[in-house]
Amino acid sequence: MSLLVTGSIGIDTIQTPTGQASDVLGGSAVYFSLAASLLSPVRLVGVVGDDFPKEFLNVFAGRPIDLRGLETRKGSKTFRWHGRYVGDMNEAETLRTDLNVLGERAPKVPAAFGDSKVVFLANTHPALQRELLAQVARPEFIVCDTMNLWIRTTRQELCQTLAAVDGVVLNDAEARLLTEESLLLRAGRRIQKMGPKFVLIKKGEHGCVMFVGETVWALPAFPTADVVDPTGAGDSFAGGMMGYLASLGRYDAQAVKAAVARGTVAASFAIEAFSLEGLRRATAEAFEARLKQYRCMLATE
Amino acid sequence: MSLLVTGSIGIDTIQTPTGQASDVLGGSAVYFSLAASLLSPVRLVGVVGDDFPKEFLNVFAGRPIDLRGLETRKGSKTFRWHGRYVGDMNEAETLRTDLNVLGERAPKVPAAFGDSKVVFLANTHPALQRELLAQVARPEFIVCDTMNLWIRTTRQELCQTLAAVDGVVLNDAEARLLTEESLLLRAGRRIQKMGPKFVLIKKGEHGCVMFVGETVWALPAFPTADVVDPTGAGDSFAGGMMGYLASLGRYDAQAVKAAVARGTVAASFAIEAFSLEGLRRATAEAFEARLKQYRCMLATE
Repeated sequence: MSLLVTGSIGIDTIQTPTGQASDVLGGSAVYFSLAASLLSPVRLVGVVGDDFPKEFLNVFAGRPIDLRGLETRKGSKTFRWHGRYVGDMNEAETLRTDLNVLGERAPKVPAAFGDSKVVFLANTHPALQRELLAQVARPEFIVCDTMNLWIRTTRQELCQTLAAVDGVVLNDAEARLLTEESLLLRAGRRIQKMGPKFVLIKKGEHGCVMFVGETVWALPAFPTADVVDPTGAGDSFAGGMMGYLASLGRYDAQAVKAAVARGTVAASFAIEAFSLEGLRRATAEAFEARLKQYRCMLATE
Repeated sequence: MSLLVTGSIGIDTIQTPTGQASDVLGGSAVYFSLAASLLSPVRLVGVVGDDFPKEFLNVFAGRPIDLRGLETRKGSKTFRWHGRYVGDMNEAETLRTDLNVLGERAPKVPAAFGDSKVVFLANTHPALQRELLAQVARPEFIVCDTMNLWIRTTRQELCQTLAAVDGVVLNDAEARLLTEESLLLRAGRRIQKMGPKFVLIKKGEHGCVMFVGETVWALPAFPTADVVDPTGAGDSFAGGMMGYLASLGRYDAQAVKAAVARGTVAASFAIEAFSLEGLRRATAEAFEARLKQYRCMLATE
């Protein structure tokens, strides 16, 4: 199944307890695409300014990522994010955001991408998510991401988006904020009632809990003490998960769980180095080997 | 392998968002024993006052729990705890503690229990844990619990106990407090350097992470939205885990992981009702059925 992602492409500056990276490649659609491309071809839709360093595109070389939906807008500047992680690095502290081109009109979905069957709407304004979705003719499986900002400021718009998708991924704090329910297992059920039959709540180092129809399952993160930079972990998770679902063409609970295992492994690579370096190291062989390790961990007999 | 547990036996008053239970049976050794007895015979060592309601002992009826080490001390009063849970119920707030008989001399390990091979030292003063341990001739596998109070006030004594045991179970906050390391995966490694080759860090609803020699594995909790009373979850977890290890007589990483699955299932029963009611409902059949469900959840293909 053809997989389309729309999301941000940005230039990040990141500080963590282990070091700092300045003016490096980032953005939800970039992490997502690189992770998903390990399992499925990807169609990327996003926009950058004319200040975007051309050499950043090297990260996509050799991966089945179709860049026809990547617009370089003249006279505009690329989205920039400056963040910091402290302590257990479970949450980023935003020091500065320059929306730049992300504050302008959305990029267009190329006509050639209009037949995409699996769609991931990475985090952006919920109205924009629907506008992008409207450009895809007959998607089979649509999943969106969101964030605390939209839950707080555009709740009604977000509810309309949730009613239009098959699934949503969000983190534990966002799930609690959206539902005002402190128990995650109840929060997930409430979100299902808002529309999506598939809800995935990410818990950082604690793994995730997934709701697919009646089914509720939890899986742990891949345990690694080498956390260098958590940026993009959630998008890499979504990429691994959606890439596998697109390759499978099935979206039942068992398929979702197998996909979550791939997402977990993708995220574990992403956090081992700054920017996209961890995901670049994830060759097909390295990915399969870690997936095997993860499965071995989950075998309790 | 014969399994011995020493710990508290108490009378609890508990408030949770779902209700309240007053003057009910509680205590680490009680939860532990009932959970462990699903998998192995248990030898219980503990002390109560002469105010201890005899009918509380009914909870042990029909279970392979040897009560010869249960001392009823004349003129003394039973340990009492009054606690409250709010929000996501991940942490108890202690409203009142009456140590009573637990503040007096420790109970004796009966001579008939002196040959116990597997020993669990539930949470108490670390010097007392060693004193109890000294009464067992040649244990094969010793695991202790602890709490923030001892980490803060008797760190040196605790370090001596840690040097004398094979394993320790503690929660995430305690692991961080003990090691001053915010990343749990590093905290576990540091605790191993203090002595125990097996370290299990409990994370409540997020499951646990285990360190066995070089191996690090994480497993999720059993997802249940029916959390009525989290009291005794950790002790029930330890009971299920140690009961299985005692029944197996092996303590390698794979054995520990299989045991952790049993502990996880035991804890899931414990939290479904106030006091010991949840664990009482856990028949051998119900336990096996839920274990199968848990394993099915962890099968990602």
